[in-house]
Parts: sequence; structure tokens; C-alpha cells
Amino acid sequence: MQFDLKCYLNDRRRLIEDYLTGLFQLEGELEHHRSAMQYSLLAGGKRVRPILCLAAVEALGKDYRPYIPVACALECIHTYSLIHDDLPAMDNDDLRRGKPTNHKVYGEAEAILAGDGLLTLAFELLSDTSRVADVEDRNRLRIINCIAQAAGSDGMVGGQSLDIAAEGKTISMEELQTIHRKKTGALITASVQTGALLGGSDERHFSRLTVYGSALGLAFQIKDDLLNVEGTTEELGKAAGSDAERMKATYPALLGLEAAREKLQNAVATAIDAVMDFGPNAEPLRSIAHYILTRTR
Amino acid sequence: MQFDLKCYLNDRRRLIEDYLTGLFQLEGELEHHRSAMQYSLLAGGKRVRPILCLAAVEALGKDYRPYIPVACALECIHTYSLIHDDLPAMDNDDLRRGKPTNHKVYGEAEAILAGDGLLTLAFELLSDTSRVADVEDRNRLRIINCIAQAAGSDGMVGGQSLDIAAEGKTISMEELQTIHRKKTGALITASVQTGALLGGSDERHFSRLTVYGSALGLAFQIKDDLLNVEGTTEELGKAAGSDAERMKATYPALLGLEAAREKLQNAVATAIDAVMDFGPNAEPLRSIAHYILTRTR
Repeated sequence: MQFDLKCYLNDRRRLIEDYLTGLFQLEGELEHHRSAMQYSLLAGGKRVRPILCLAAVEALGKDYRPYIPVACALECIHTYSLIHDDLPAMDNDDLRRGKPTNHKVYGEAEAILAGDGLLTLAFELLSDTSRVADVEDRNRLRIINCIAQAAGSDGMVGGQSLDIAAEGKTISMEELQTIHRKKTGALITASVQTGALLGGSDERHFSRLTVYGSALGLAFQIKDDLLNVEGTTEELGKAAGSDAERMKATYPALLGLEAAREKLQNAVATAIDAVMDFGPNAEPLRSIAHYILTRTR
Repeated sequence: MQFDLKCYLNDRRRLIEDYLTGLFQLEGELEHHRSAMQYSLLAGGKRVRPILCLAAVEALGKDYRPYIPVACALECIHTYSLIHDDLPAMDNDDLRRGKPTNHKVYGEAEAILAGDGLLTLAFELLSDTSRVADVEDRNRLRIINCIAQAAGSDGMVGGQSLDIAAEGKTISMEELQTIHRKKTGALITASVQTGALLGGSDERHFSRLTVYGSALGLAFQIKDDLLNVEGTTEELGKAAGSDAERMKATYPALLGLEAAREKLQNAVATAIDAVMDFGPNAEPLRSIAHYILTRTR
């Protein structure tokens, strides 16, 4: 029987969205603030990070279901970063996933606070020992630290700072890689590492899954850049061609389309190779990597 | 021998600032981003939250020195909240502690990211088991959860959202209390609670210290409001009279000056009373509460 990735992704996405929906009670004095957080959190993302986290747990032969709250914390962090990145002072985007961005609906002040609230909520979820009971305390602390490092100044936040500083400038391939490794790669890698830690991986499996995560993060970014050139606004749910308009450094801009496509294929191959001998439990991880080649949004 | 509060505060402040200074390596590609974080972190705050945390440890008869990194995480969270509150989209303040606000120096985009970076750094520090070794894992998780709850949507971030929504509106005394309990009270209370947990408090001590923290938070806010009416810009290091100009709801605005002063005295009395039988180790906590009555900035 062939593995049905589409069905798998839909199923995981539903479980994740059910949990995310249940996080908010939309009543009382904080209704407006919570609506702003929920608006972006439930705006139809691909849920790549939580799905990768749960797939890494599975790849190690463990039941992923108890860990949905941990995976959702990763989505909270990802969503906060999108809300802040879209702000007028940053990328000034009006559309995200086909919908008006958070500040377009709730205003700038509330969008900043919705982001702050989601980032903090992630650490509240991660540190709540009653929410997921069967994670050893030391392992949980290691997960929190891993995620904080990836999300913070040495990772995602630092990458966004470098990205903004680079806009309109000519940068080298090496600088571009650094920006993306931090801005998108770090949290994707940490998502896989979180799954590895939850799954009780040994050193060897942890390091293989780290290779998988970082190659996948690179592949994801190159594909995003390619879609921005090749896709349409309708397909993407955000403005196509916006990178070129801003003279943003991207893989296609720096390497040319053909070489960027080749780099994408190499990254996908590296990711698949890293988990090749994990057996049938790692089929989701391998399929996800392969799927990046063909996705259209 | 009488307890010398001024000397005590200077000493603690120095220890805290030494640690905060050591947090950043200002070199390499992220120098600009790290400078932005450091600028506000070292802009001369009173360090109320970390000092309260360490004083609560002391009040329980334990050595406070190993816990400076934990206390500093609280200051990172407080500083991030100031950076974001000062943004043009929020309170639009140009001055803070007598210096240009973060976005005035580094621009809005970097100010948002410096805040995001500091918030995330706090959780990185708190979850780093190598930084402070002698906290039990379960206790550390409880501390992280306590701080995340206080800093997040049910606490500080939610309070700021309510505060912004209330600007220019007539609100009741009850609504004002809710805003301040969340916006400033929650993190001050959590700072004292963190000290209580680090100091190994029993249930009774924990609940007394919680009463202390929440009364102190209230006293602090009323005093801030009073200083905004009574103080000068030079004394305050930020614009005096700015609350009235914005028609911001404050204790003096809602109660009148006399009743606000009386409410301040009651809150200070409640705080001191809560730790009255803690013995000489709690002298710093009692002195800090008493000092709020007379501070001029």
C-alpha cells in the first residue's frame, strides 16, 4: 500500500487546528486581543512545523498524539513571526495566505501585541506539565531551550533583522544562506529536533534528524523564492513577484532559475538521504521532503 | 544597625547590570541587532523586578547570588515590554529614562525585533540548566510557566491591549484596576513568586509573598501615576503630564489626588504587613515597599 501524503497532511492539519482552536475562549474583556491572536493562528497555514515535529516523533516509532500541544507551540511561534514580519515597519504586506494581514484587520498596535501574546503563549504551553504529562522534566527543559534558541536573536529574530538590513543591498550567496538558515531554517530544524527529543532519540538519530531538518528548511526557502518568481498571486495567497519588486536577494536572483532549481533538488535529496534507513516509520518525513519539489503554494 | 536601602539597591543593581552587560557579544553580523537589545536593557532602569526576585529569595533565608541569571530574565521581559509600548503604533514615546526610545535610535523595525529578541532571550535564560544549576527541573518549569502566564495574554500583554483600547474612553475604577493588575502587576507579582519558588517556599510563604507582590505592584502603579502629575520631565526622564494630555485613565484622574495618595498608602501597608513576620531576612522587601511612598522617579 502506497503512503498517501495528501491524506496524511490533511489528517495532521485537522488535529493541529482543532487544538489551536481550543486554545482561545473568545469572551470577556480580552475578546478583541484573543480574536487578533486567533485570526492569524487559524488563517489556514500549511502547519509545516508542527507536522514535522509530530512526524519526527513517528519516525522514531512513538505515538505522536500526546504531543500535539508541544507541536502547536511551534505554530504559535511561526504565526507570531509572520504577524510581526508583515507590519508596515517591516515587510509592509497587506495579504497573507489570501487574507488581509493582522494589522490590516486589527491595527498595528494590536498586531504587535497579538504577536507578543502568541510568542509568550508558546512558552506557556511548553512549560505546562499538566498539558503533556509524559515528557521528562529535563527533556522538556531541553526542548524549551532548543526552541528559544532557534526562535531568538541567534535564530529567527536575528535572521529577520539581517534580512531587513539586506533589503536593496547586494549580498553574497554566503550572506543569503546565513539569513535563511536563521530566519526560516532554525525554527524548522528545531521543530524536527523537538520531535526527536519527544521521541526519545539517541545521539545518532538526533543528528540525522537535525540534518534532515536543516536541509528541509533550505529546500523550503528555495521553493518559496521560486514560487515568488513562478507562481501567481492567486495560487500563492500573497503578492507574486514581490521579491523582485523589492530587489530582495533570493536564490533565483543570485543563482539564476536553473541553478536555484538544482540547489533545491540537492537539498531535498540530502533530507531524504538523512532518514533513509529509519524504516517505514519515516515515510512521512521522506514524503514531505519529496513533496516540496512539486508544491505550488 | 539600620538597614541601608540605598546601599542595598545600588549593590543589587550593579550585580544585575554586570550580568546583563555580559549577555551580549557586540561583534559579527548581528552586532546591530544586539546593540539595539543592549541599548534598552542597559538604559538605566530601576531593576525593580530582578531586585524583588532576589529579595524574595533572601527573605526565605537563602543565598540569592546563584539566581542572578533568573532575575535578569525578568528584566529582559520588562525591557521588551517598554520597547514595544513606546512604539509609534502604541504609546508613541520619544523619551524613556531620559534617553531616546529604542525606535528613535534603531528605527521601528529593529525596535520590534529587539523586543522580540529580549522576550525570547528570557526563556532561553530560564530554560538553560547550565546557567543556574541548583534549581530542580520541576521547580524551574513551574517558574517558566509562572513567568509566561504573567507576561502573556492573560497578564502583561493583555493589560497593554486593554490599556490601548481604553485610551480616550471613560473607564470605571474596576476596569482601571484590571488593566494595571495585568499590565504591571502581573510581572511584578511573578517576580516575587519566582523568588519564592527559587527560595523553596512552602505554601504559606508563597501565598504571603504573592500578596506582597500584588500589593507592591498596585502601589508602584499608583505612584507612577502620581509622579506623572506631580513630577517634572527632568526628574522622571520621560514626559511629565503626558497621561493627562492623552486623557489617560489614571488613579489620580479617577479618584482625585488625595484619594489616590491614600490608596497608595494602603497598598504599601498591605505589602509590608504580608511579610511582617518573615523576620530580619525580609527587611529588604519591607524597605522597598516603604520606599515607594517617597520615591521621586
